[in-house]
Amino acid sequence: MSLAVASRSCRRLTLSTRLCTGFVLLVAVSCVYAAVEQELQFIFNTFSFLVWGALVMWMCAGFTMLESGSVRTKNASVICLKNIGLYSIAGLMYYLVGYNLMYTDVSGWVGTFTLTYGPSAQELALLSGDETAKAAVVENGYSVMSDWFFQMVFVATTASIISGAMAERVKLWSFLLFTAVLAGFIYPIVGAWTWGGGWLSERGFQDFAGSTIVHSTGGWAALAGVLIAGPRLGKFRPDGSVKATPPSNVPIVTLGVFILWLGWFGFNGGSQLALGGAADAVAMSNVLVNTNLAAAAGVIAALSVSRPLLGRVDLLAGLNGAIGGLVSITAGPDIVTHSWSIVIGLVGGVMVVAGMKLLENLKVDDVVGAIPAHLFAGIWGTLAVCIAAGGNLLVQLTGILAVGAYVFVVALALWYVIEKTIGVRVSTAVEEVGQDSAELGIESYPEFVLMPDTDDVEMLSNK
Amino acid sequence: MSLAVASRSCRRLTLSTRLCTGFVLLVAVSCVYAAVEQELQFIFNTFSFLVWGALVMWMCAGFTMLESGSVRTKNASVICLKNIGLYSIAGLMYYLVGYNLMYTDVSGWVGTFTLTYGPSAQELALLSGDETAKAAVVENGYSVMSDWFFQMVFVATTASIISGAMAERVKLWSFLLFTAVLAGFIYPIVGAWTWGGGWLSERGFQDFAGSTIVHSTGGWAALAGVLIAGPRLGKFRPDGSVKATPPSNVPIVTLGVFILWLGWFGFNGGSQLALGGAADAVAMSNVLVNTNLAAAAGVIAALSVSRPLLGRVDLLAGLNGAIGGLVSITAGPDIVTHSWSIVIGLVGGVMVVAGMKLLENLKVDDVVGAIPAHLFAGIWGTLAVCIAAGGNLLVQLTGILAVGAYVFVVALALWYVIEKTIGVRVSTAVEEVGQDSAELGIESYPEFVLMPDTDDVEMLSNK
Amino acid sequence: MSLAVASRSCRRLTLSTRLCTGFVLLVAVSCVYAAVEQELQFIFNTFSFLVWGALVMWMCAGFTMLESGSVRTKNASVICLKNIGLYSIAGLMYYLVGYNLMYTDVSGWVGTFTLTYGPSAQELALLSGDETAKAAVVENGYSVMSDWFFQMVFVATTASIISGAMAERVKLWSFLLFTAVLAGFIYPIVGAWTWGGGWLSERGFQDFAGSTIVHSTGGWAALAGVLIAGPRLGKFRPDGSVKATPPSNVPIVTLGVFILWLGWFGFNGGSQLALGGAADAVAMSNVLVNTNLAAAAGVIAALSVSRPLLGRVDLLAGLNGAIGGLVSITAGPDIVTHSWSIVIGLVGGVMVVAGMKLLENLKVDDVVGAIPAHLFAGIWGTLAVCIAAGGNLLVQLTGILAVGAYVFVVALALWYVIEKTIGVRVSTAVEEVGQDSAELGIESYPEFVLMPDTDDVEMLSNK
Repeated sequence: MSLAVASRSCRRLTLSTRLCTGFVLLVAVSCVYAAVEQELQFIFNTFSFLVWGALVMWMCAGFTMLESGSVRTKNASVICLKNIGLYSIAGLMYYLVGYNLMYTDVSGWVGTFTLTYGPSAQELALLSGDETAKAAVVENGYSVMSDWFFQMVFVATTASIISGAMAERVKLWSFLLFTAVLAGFIYPIVGAWTWGGGWLSERGFQDFAGSTIVHSTGGWAALAGVLIAGPRLGKFRPDGSVKATPPSNVPIVTLGVFILWLGWFGFNGGSQLALGGAADAVAMSNVLVNTNLAAAAGVIAALSVSRPLLGRVDLLAGLNGAIGGLVSITAGPDIVTHSWSIVIGLVGGVMVVAGMKLLENLKVDDVVGAIPAHLFAGIWGTLAVCIAAGGNLLVQLTGILAVGAYVFVVALALWYVIEKTIGVRVSTAVEEVGQDSAELGIESYPEFVLMPDTDDVEMLSNK
Repeated sequence: MSLAVASRSCRRLTLSTRLCTGFVLLVAVSCVYAAVEQELQFIFNTFSFLVWGALVMWMCAGFTMLESGSVRTKNASVICLKNIGLYSIAGLMYYLVGYNLMYTDVSGWVGTFTLTYGPSAQELALLSGDETAKAAVVENGYSVMSDWFFQMVFVATTASIISGAMAERVKLWSFLLFTAVLAGFIYPIVGAWTWGGGWLSERGFQDFAGSTIVHSTGGWAALAGVLIAGPRLGKFRPDGSVKATPPSNVPIVTLGVFILWLGWFGFNGGSQLALGGAADAVAMSNVLVNTNLAAAAGVIAALSVSRPLLGRVDLLAGLNGAIGGLVSITAGPDIVTHSWSIVIGLVGGVMVVAGMKLLENLKVDDVVGAIPAHLFAGIWGTLAVCIAAGGNLLVQLTGILAVGAYVFVVALALWYVIEKTIGVRVSTAVEEVGQDSAELGIESYPEFVLMPDTDDVEMLSNK
Repeated sequence: MSLAVASRSCRRLTLSTRLCTGFVLLVAVSCVYAAVEQELQFIFNTFSFLVWGALVMWMCAGFTMLESGSVRTKNASVICLKNIGLYSIAGLMYYLVGYNLMYTDVSGWVGTFTLTYGPSAQELALLSGDETAKAAVVENGYSVMSDWFFQMVFVATTASIISGAMAERVKLWSFLLFTAVLAGFIYPIVGAWTWGGGWLSERGFQDFAGSTIVHSTGGWAALAGVLIAGPRLGKFRPDGSVKATPPSNVPIVTLGVFILWLGWFGFNGGSQLALGGAADAVAMSNVLVNTNLAAAAGVIAALSVSRPLLGRVDLLAGLNGAIGGLVSITAGPDIVTHSWSIVIGLVGGVMVVAGMKLLENLKVDDVVGAIPAHLFAGIWGTLAVCIAAGGNLLVQLTGILAVGAYVFVVALALWYVIEKTIGVRVSTAVEEVGQDSAELGIESYPEFVLMPDTDDVEMLSNK
């Protein structure tokens, strides 16, 4: 049932030392398929990290479009600033402390607290022209900073999730402060437990590209945030009804989802972490196909259930269904069959729509449906590895619960501290006028004539 | 005149069996340029499929932006849904039946009707750790599913073309139903005749990346669709005049064309199907350059003729000219010289503008000019291979006519059946209020104050 | 302090002839790290050019979104046309004459004036099936046209810079004419001095991916243009105050900057020009990381100083700060350390905001802040190579001044000639009504109700 017997639980690639191709050939001429020479593997692995990593960076643009099109026009610019700000801060924090906490000498729970990260001494020697350093460089399997680059772009994804859920009321600076801590400390510690080789990795926790490690982490932090911040003004009316807050710019929401879909090929494909042999190339191909099938299934499922659950064929449900499918497959795109990918994506798509409905019923205000798409689908995806590919259910549950408890509690505490100091939420006046003009002094679409808030209109018409 | 003596008429790469590099070296030490080792070729070929295929998927976002910016705001969301829906459905259908019909054991006219497609047994064995399977895996030249991925993204392009031509009046579900049949059956059969190695391929039909196979197929299906559906309400007035229906959001139309242009590097570049040797790398480079030159020439030509033909320097003509140039070069970017590419693109650009004018005169309502850009330019590109690179005119004509007759007739029949059952076209009431609110219950730009329909204004002012 | 002892001052890659891997192995079996076989290097180098080059082409979409969102809605379409037009014209001109002037037999100051460029005779022979040509093909290190493709996309960047600075008043055809000369002659001559191996290259001028050669060239030409054209009507009021002209569509401006950021990975990463060995792969990784860190630092710095300098936390400053950081690092991303990249980006970000303020005080109307972002940051970046990596200050200054003097004077003369013939600037009537309706006969957002010009409103309210 599974495409491969075992998924790497640790994200750092360890290449087994191989003999030189040529040497093998001299000894055993008939050995037609000697391993690919190490330096070639090094180039392939490195280039894979860079190309796919660039596509993952592109996902930040996807989140930005999705979110700024989803919020009301009065908050669209501040969403843009939050997203380019979070990407910048996340990258800098991950350079300063995050990567080392996640990957450097991880002893079960966390790596080392060391400032900054950089190329190895051997790499610097090689760049200076010392060819004798090449052996040690190549032994590493990939360029040190290509790995850093690929890991870094994942951090930003986690933060982007929060931005969408808490849109339209969280203060710009409070959000960016949270982002800095998340990228520098919260996420790297989750990473150390798992991809860094820590205790969850040792137990065999499987999460290929981060259904739990990236997406649920973002989802838990977002859930903590929306609970502390509370819903937007007027979202849940005193009479129990829910105010509709439709996307203000549907085409760019759609564009955002296409960007995410494209970027996910890098997110999951690059997470193979290697391209130095036929097996890696085959695996990477299967990963891309599974990623695409799950996303497609998520769209179809979400559209199909949107009519019974939401009362209409809902484009936004369909778009979020794509994300739900993508998040669901992310834990095991290397080990499930293509047909299972479709099933996993279908369930993910349904969960997103049902989750959006559930949160609304619980009066939890998640502006873009990020919690269903990233947290609920992330949990499902991490469990689906067991169903579809024989993962260890107990270990997967342990991982889900441990990461969930840790991230949710720490995020809740951090949001609470922020609330008690600089405040999580903008004032009522700012929220009414919009964060764009209040916090940034601009409008997103200054020349366009906009309607007054629909709720005001409704209230007027009720009089 | 031609860069290469022969273009592959069959899209499936067959690697000639090569001796192991090392073995050759032992026997003939002076053989400096032994062939690249098979496993390396395998990695290069596979990675080329994946990277370029990802860019082709991105074209779906391009069509979405182009189309949703081209239609009136009241139909922009339903275009978004159609496009993400068609990409999802096309991918699933191609997985379920399409690929097998197109490529598996094609006997002249069609492959096998077998459900689902997947990695080879040897690939699964290799992924399970059986290194002895590597020889058979590598012998295939590329990972099975990387090829599937690359072929799959082409299907969606075909469907996207139809979406644009029939915008603003075709029912959501009727369109998606047509898409499913197109991706599962109509397109794969065209593909079986040609890239699958069927009868047209055996006659030497040349269509490198699908001027006819992809673009004209979409164009013929679109033409059948618009003939059955008829023009939009009020597009052609009783007095013979044509109502202008300008794009509602020009910047995203432009963005869409840039996305398509970028994606076309994958579309044509990846269609080299191989990157395992210097000749393939050279060919791929020439392909990208020709693709870019033809597109650039298409822009310039379309802009130049837009003033005499359309009465003004027309941005939309220029943008469509890029697509015309791209479609034109797609049949032979590997075998024409760079200067011929410019000529081919220039003609393609002119044809698009002239074609838009022609369709308008014929009272055929093609919302985005998809039929001129994909069908007319596709025919021209398929013939241009003869002029510029000595292709066989009779064979090319046979291919154009056979594909055209088959697709047009089948599409016409299918649209007719849909019309007689669930209906192709939305009701007059839905068309007037817009598909977004009628079919989806949303507005694309709900906060923006929009003008009443210009035609109503005109009618009022005529009173 | 520096990652490598020397940066290539000449952009054409010269591969040292290497013995065949296999031969080396026979002679010296213990040589585990023989060089990568030439044909493999050829494939890697070529594919790197193509993939990264495609991302650089994508930057043109970034400039288009940035600019069309930054201008008032009445000029957004003409910006789209200028950008797709300039990309087309630049590519054609670079094919016709530009590349040869820049790279063919450069004798100190300029290459040869020869029409068109194309694959080598050996490449054509190889494509025709002549395997004996492979040795000579592979000796070149990369496919001839892959290099052309990568160089071509850089030309368009230079022209895009000018489009933004001179927006909202330069005539469409005057701008496109300037673009043709820039791409065909002005830029290639700068390129010949430097990357082409001319006099500045011989002196050791270091500009890895073009802080001076691309970005300052564009910036100088833009400065000349805005001086000849003058500010937009009403931008600087008689009372000395400055009319705010906020972006009309903030989300697409943000999208544009994300596109540029992504594209810059290709711009700088591809400028390593090679991927044929471990050292190149390591260098490319460092380049991408430095590029990203400098951009992130530019965002943070620009946001931080925007409040004191501009009076508010300014999203546009932050977005332009990203570009400032990116331009700053472009001269030496291969030789500065990661921490220095952050410093370089921080300074670049500050300079952009300060530069925007300075130009405003000088009554120079640069619509999108292109001159601070590309010229000022470009100068800084070229000098920063000395500070951070021991470049030769005198040589760097020579390059900056020589390029600046040449480009500025020639551009000034050319704009002057254009002004005296067809005119640089649209008429007052056209400027007031907007170039979209006056020059193209369309509106960018025809269905949206737009506000009257804010200045008119202000003037009215002052009455």
